[in-house]
Amino acid sequence: MNIVVGQSGGPTAAINASLAGVYQAAVDAGAKKVYGMRNGIQGFLAENLVDLKEILDEEEKVERLKRTPASFLGSCRYKLKKAEVDETDYQKIFAILKKYEINCFFYIGGNDSMDTICKLAAYGKKIGSDIRFVGVPKTIDNDLMATDHTPGYGSAAKFVATVIKELVYDARIYQLKSVLIVEVMGRNAGWLTAASVLAKDENCEGVDLIYLPEASFTMEKFYADVQECLKTKDSVVVAVSEGIKLSDGRYVCELSAGNGCEDAFGHKQLSGTALFLAQDCARVLNVKTRAVELSTLQRCAGHLTSATDLLEAQEVGAAAVRAAIEGKSGVATTLVRLSEQPYRWGTSIIEIDKMANSEKTIPLAWINDTQNGLTEAFEKYARPLIEGEVSLCYKGGLPQYIRLDEEI
Amino acid sequence: MNIVVGQSGGPTAAINASLAGVYQAAVDAGAKKVYGMRNGIQGFLAENLVDLKEILDEEEKVERLKRTPASFLGSCRYKLKKAEVDETDYQKIFAILKKYEINCFFYIGGNDSMDTICKLAAYGKKIGSDIRFVGVPKTIDNDLMATDHTPGYGSAAKFVATVIKELVYDARIYQLKSVLIVEVMGRNAGWLTAASVLAKDENCEGVDLIYLPEASFTMEKFYADVQECLKTKDSVVVAVSEGIKLSDGRYVCELSAGNGCEDAFGHKQLSGTALFLAQDCARVLNVKTRAVELSTLQRCAGHLTSATDLLEAQEVGAAAVRAAIEGKSGVATTLVRLSEQPYRWGTSIIEIDKMANSEKTIPLAWINDTQNGLTEAFEKYARPLIEGEVSLCYKGGLPQYIRLDEEI
Repeated sequence: MNIVVGQSGGPTAAINASLAGVYQAAVDAGAKKVYGMRNGIQGFLAENLVDLKEILDEEEKVERLKRTPASFLGSCRYKLKKAEVDETDYQKIFAILKKYEINCFFYIGGNDSMDTICKLAAYGKKIGSDIRFVGVPKTIDNDLMATDHTPGYGSAAKFVATVIKELVYDARIYQLKSVLIVEVMGRNAGWLTAASVLAKDENCEGVDLIYLPEASFTMEKFYADVQECLKTKDSVVVAVSEGIKLSDGRYVCELSAGNGCEDAFGHKQLSGTALFLAQDCARVLNVKTRAVELSTLQRCAGHLTSATDLLEAQEVGAAAVRAAIEGKSGVATTLVRLSEQPYRWGTSIIEIDKMANSEKTIPLAWINDTQNGLTEAFEKYARPLIEGEVSLCYKGGLPQYIRLDEEI
Repeated sequence: MNIVVGQSGGPTAAINASLAGVYQAAVDAGAKKVYGMRNGIQGFLAENLVDLKEILDEEEKVERLKRTPASFLGSCRYKLKKAEVDETDYQKIFAILKKYEINCFFYIGGNDSMDTICKLAAYGKKIGSDIRFVGVPKTIDNDLMATDHTPGYGSAAKFVATVIKELVYDARIYQLKSVLIVEVMGRNAGWLTAASVLAKDENCEGVDLIYLPEASFTMEKFYADVQECLKTKDSVVVAVSEGIKLSDGRYVCELSAGNGCEDAFGHKQLSGTALFLAQDCARVLNVKTRAVELSTLQRCAGHLTSATDLLEAQEVGAAAVRAAIEGKSGVATTLVRLSEQPYRWGTSIIEIDKMANSEKTIPLAWINDTQNGLTEAFEKYARPLIEGEVSLCYKGGLPQYIRLDEEI
């Protein structure tokens, strides 16, 4: 048996734990070759493959891989055309699969990656191939359907909760009315912003207000909320999702004068929401404000991951291999919550079309009545996911990761 | 003997280690009362004092204090008027010192705090008081004179180096020309931005370009530098200080259209430099860009501190107490580098006026000829300061700190 594995879409701090899970399970199952495709399906189309058994030739390297943030194999954002429209890519992919005698194909990614698995499995079925295609979910956004939560979310949530706890400590040192606005990633789903509620514990009062894309938002309501908080305390801390929108459908960051909302290719870049709100809040409420954008750090902070998340990510990878060996194709692995207290979890398998091309947002019942916070139900859901610390190897004061280029 | 200790100015992740150092040394020296002033000299003037022996009544609490970011006692930005101009504050302060029978006064802070110590010691001398005033330096900016480096810098530098290492990993996952611009704190002194050079180690290629306030900067040179890097690699990572200036003296962030540069009180807020450069770079070089502002996280990341820094911070606090007991006043403690390899350090004492009211910038000889990087001499200086990791107590996935409000 030969297998190939790739990574696609935005990275997480746990995506390489899933890669390690696939790799280890494949080796344990007696795979002859375990290929890694560089830069996802785009690299596969260029036959850009590496031999992972040669690269991960020591157990220590596999352990380091689990703890390394960002896609070890590189990534891509490449959407396969529908086979009905253009078969070129499909023919090429199946020719390469044949050439390398590959039996199983694993793809670690989010929505779009599941779409790739979906299409390849369908095409394979159509041409009578017995190659198995299995998706391994990942995303810091936690917006994939049909899984209790997604590998990558727990670590990102732990980073968000921890640094917001620290920002709350920092914000209250002066005797001065002030408002800190922290911007968290999440375009349509507020899961990661919601994790800011976890900053609250017995030695931190947490954030005061949380605004999610799923809740209604108006500038008037925002100012009223902040002003209400300022009545009873000096330092107000607000978490906002980069994707919060006005009732007319415009993103809040679009209100900012020509700033922060377009990238080099004219795509809307959803950043600058906190900066805009901080500047406007200073003007309207005449109070000291500060904006912090957690930015890319949220998805790549390998120095602060959730042990629960890394273990789950690994197991979701391993379960994909077991499913493929059992003959499953066109499926993805999921995480299942077996019990709440104590938190216990397992993996399962679903048809890939249940996961591809749709987004899971926060249940409205988990958002409070005033649309500026979360209920206890969310906390109960999210707290176990950030549990557990991961020990890293440090050298010269820096965490040691593994890089593909230097292993080849 | 009774003592009082306060904290002032912006916080660091090590400022409470100095507080713990002062506290422990005072207790060990047999101090009857160890008072903490809340919100620095401003709180002292309002007799807002707490009894630290009551609060830190368990050794575990002192250990937790050392690891807690942001000023435990609260902070202020309060500049004493010259005694020649107005003696009101001085009379009040010395009356309170007398009332509480305080013999020694310790102030943990940066430039302005050293100015406070300087003025109080001079006034005390003038009125024949035998109360001793000793400064304990702290700042993430590392811009204090007469000390090899400043407590707080090592931890901030470790955070900067680590997250930039992780951002470098994140930035290179796509096969795509891209420029990431990371903004680091530092208005006039580039020490913290310079720490980005430390991201480079055996498994990270580090940043490509570093721009400091001390070096000359033009937009033309910046584009030429970036373009040169893009010739040989896909992903270019640039670190810029928030305080970089054009030759005409304007801050680069001021070039941004009415954005990011003024706070509620009309003060220039030096943020938005990376955002401006990223947007402009996308326009001029037609390349995908991204801006990350490390923001307040740099000074409050208690979850990622340097063990060397925390130990030095503590010792600088303890040395201040020893100096006061020996009868010294109007002095500050400093860190001295005893040897380079292996790195060995000690503390010393200097007259406070050597530290107050002046800034230490990076020696020009440590900036490379092309004004976009650091020499090896800087690396040799800075690397030992980020060494060593600090173990934290975690609960529910979050680091546990100590908060004054809940201990009273």
